[in-house]
Amino acid sequence: MGSRFWPYSRQAMPKQFIDFLGTGRSLLQLTVDRLEGIVPPENIIMLTNEQYSSIVQEQLPQIKPDQILLEPVRRNTAPCNAWAAWHIKSLNPDAKIMVAPSDHLILKHEDFKASVVRAFEFLEKNENSIVTFGVKPNRPETGYGYIQEGTHVDEFFSKVKTFTEKPDKELANVFLETGEFYWNSGMFFWGVDTIINAMREYAPEISDLFDHANMFYGTPQEQEFINEHYIECPNISIDYAVMEKAPCVFVEKVDFGWSDLGTWGSVYDNSPKNRDGNVTPGTRVLAFESNNNVIAARGDKLVVVSGLNGYIVADTPDALLIVPKNDEQKIKNYVNEAKTHFGDKYL
Amino acid sequence: MGSRFWPYSRQAMPKQFIDFLGTGRSLLQLTVDRLEGIVPPENIIMLTNEQYSSIVQEQLPQIKPDQILLEPVRRNTAPCNAWAAWHIKSLNPDAKIMVAPSDHLILKHEDFKASVVRAFEFLEKNENSIVTFGVKPNRPETGYGYIQEGTHVDEFFSKVKTFTEKPDKELANVFLETGEFYWNSGMFFWGVDTIINAMREYAPEISDLFDHANMFYGTPQEQEFINEHYIECPNISIDYAVMEKAPCVFVEKVDFGWSDLGTWGSVYDNSPKNRDGNVTPGTRVLAFESNNNVIAARGDKLVVVSGLNGYIVADTPDALLIVPKNDEQKIKNYVNEAKTHFGDKYL
Repeated sequence: MGSRFWPYSRQAMPKQFIDFLGTGRSLLQLTVDRLEGIVPPENIIMLTNEQYSSIVQEQLPQIKPDQILLEPVRRNTAPCNAWAAWHIKSLNPDAKIMVAPSDHLILKHEDFKASVVRAFEFLEKNENSIVTFGVKPNRPETGYGYIQEGTHVDEFFSKVKTFTEKPDKELANVFLETGEFYWNSGMFFWGVDTIINAMREYAPEISDLFDHANMFYGTPQEQEFINEHYIECPNISIDYAVMEKAPCVFVEKVDFGWSDLGTWGSVYDNSPKNRDGNVTPGTRVLAFESNNNVIAARGDKLVVVSGLNGYIVADTPDALLIVPKNDEQKIKNYVNEAKTHFGDKYL
Repeated sequence: MGSRFWPYSRQAMPKQFIDFLGTGRSLLQLTVDRLEGIVPPENIIMLTNEQYSSIVQEQLPQIKPDQILLEPVRRNTAPCNAWAAWHIKSLNPDAKIMVAPSDHLILKHEDFKASVVRAFEFLEKNENSIVTFGVKPNRPETGYGYIQEGTHVDEFFSKVKTFTEKPDKELANVFLETGEFYWNSGMFFWGVDTIINAMREYAPEISDLFDHANMFYGTPQEQEFINEHYIECPNISIDYAVMEKAPCVFVEKVDFGWSDLGTWGSVYDNSPKNRDGNVTPGTRVLAFESNNNVIAARGDKLVVVSGLNGYIVADTPDALLIVPKNDEQKIKNYVNEAKTHFGDKYL
């Protein structure tokens, strides 16, 4: 729902549905694509807000409607992970679950697959464990949460010592220097019973609700129940509700070219550059004396730029944004300004 | 047909058909609008290339099809003025003609009307005279032709001494300093017989052709004759063919806020500025730390710019141009480059 990619992302078409890299596949589609060979399509469960139901079905025709769980309201990541767990338990009480955000970028697919396989193997060997991917940081990023590793289990896995919210610049530098801190990627692995029991212990307000619906999972009453009661869930993240409190949480240290692709700047950083240093994802661009821009337009629109350096140019049929890359944090203010002047028209 | 306003102007939609000022009226419509009260609509004859016939009829529903003379090929301004004269003679052998280019800007309509009325009155009083509007120059413009005035007739009119092509900067400065030189606006006034006789004397290759068709004017055979023979006309301007040679040419010195609106820069110079110095003709713009730009988009497209100074931003559904105002002379090169890469698609 963020406005950081406006006008490319909109309320009705948020980031995960957009093809930022010009590959012809949205971030959501890429997320499903890279699970090929690891998770059979019929074992994928999508959780999304009900307003995005048709976009998901359109972008992922291989996912059947009964694999899509529709949240009637937003309640952050703890309630939706709870729903997923209880729902999956009704399909397979021994299931192991991977939680994969749909709006992240992963560049090295083979390394990613190896990491995923390793995490599932770890769950098999270590009963009741929870695994979270910790991405090796390469810069003192203040936009991510961090995981501090404790006791090493082996080359790849360590016990988690602490979860830390987004740090300030100084602290992020300390994190980077110690070598003990990893970016929290928001990707988790757990067994159905492990997460359900953890919820019962650390988030009973949520588990009570989902336990009450045990007779409904897998029936038409499931969605009815959710539509009526999901709103009663506390609005709380899975990190805060469970991960920070559960005892058997392990971090798998991974390095597969991950980005949460949170800004145009990260699209720029993570995309191949033209000879002139411009990033033009899937866009017809003629650039003259113009360098280090990210220029994105839809379809076969031609963008001609001259004497433009270090800008974001993002064009859609009804809105065009031109802003220096260094000012990208102001985009949300501009979107607010647009709302002030024109209401919801361009949101 | 120029590419200087690309992507706003196109081969299929040249400058005169475009609403550059965001008034809701194209330059062509504004040209007809400002003749209101001087020339009855039924006395207006349009000359245009046949490919623009439908655009003219769409933009000017008050002009009947038989008032539109369609050139099958481009032959510059002498042949089309000849056709107009012979055609009008068949309607009214005593007609006085005003020639008004359709793609110029005039800001002060009342002053313009007074000047037009004065020119027609001059024709009535001075048989066989030709009047041309000379615009008082306010800068050493190298993009216009100049008219040097000779003997003064009265406060407003002088005999023309010379017509001069576009000067270099040095000469343009001299022109400005002497106070004897006026911009050639391309607007002319003459009686039907005056121009026809001048053609017969100075451009017999053209007059012979049109004299041969005397039995056709006002009949369905007129357009047939033109379609077959217009191509035989020499490709020559009215200035070169007649004005520079005819003896009784007078300049009326005018000052009504004229521009041939030849570049985005002249659109900028001639348009009202926002508080921040931006010109945004009919366009929804939110400008942050952005000054002295001309920003044009179609319909209700929203353009958000930040940290942009002195640029042209011209957006259309299939092409977007961003170029510093100071580099506007390069636009035609960019259009050529687009042609090299993509053929006629964006022309």
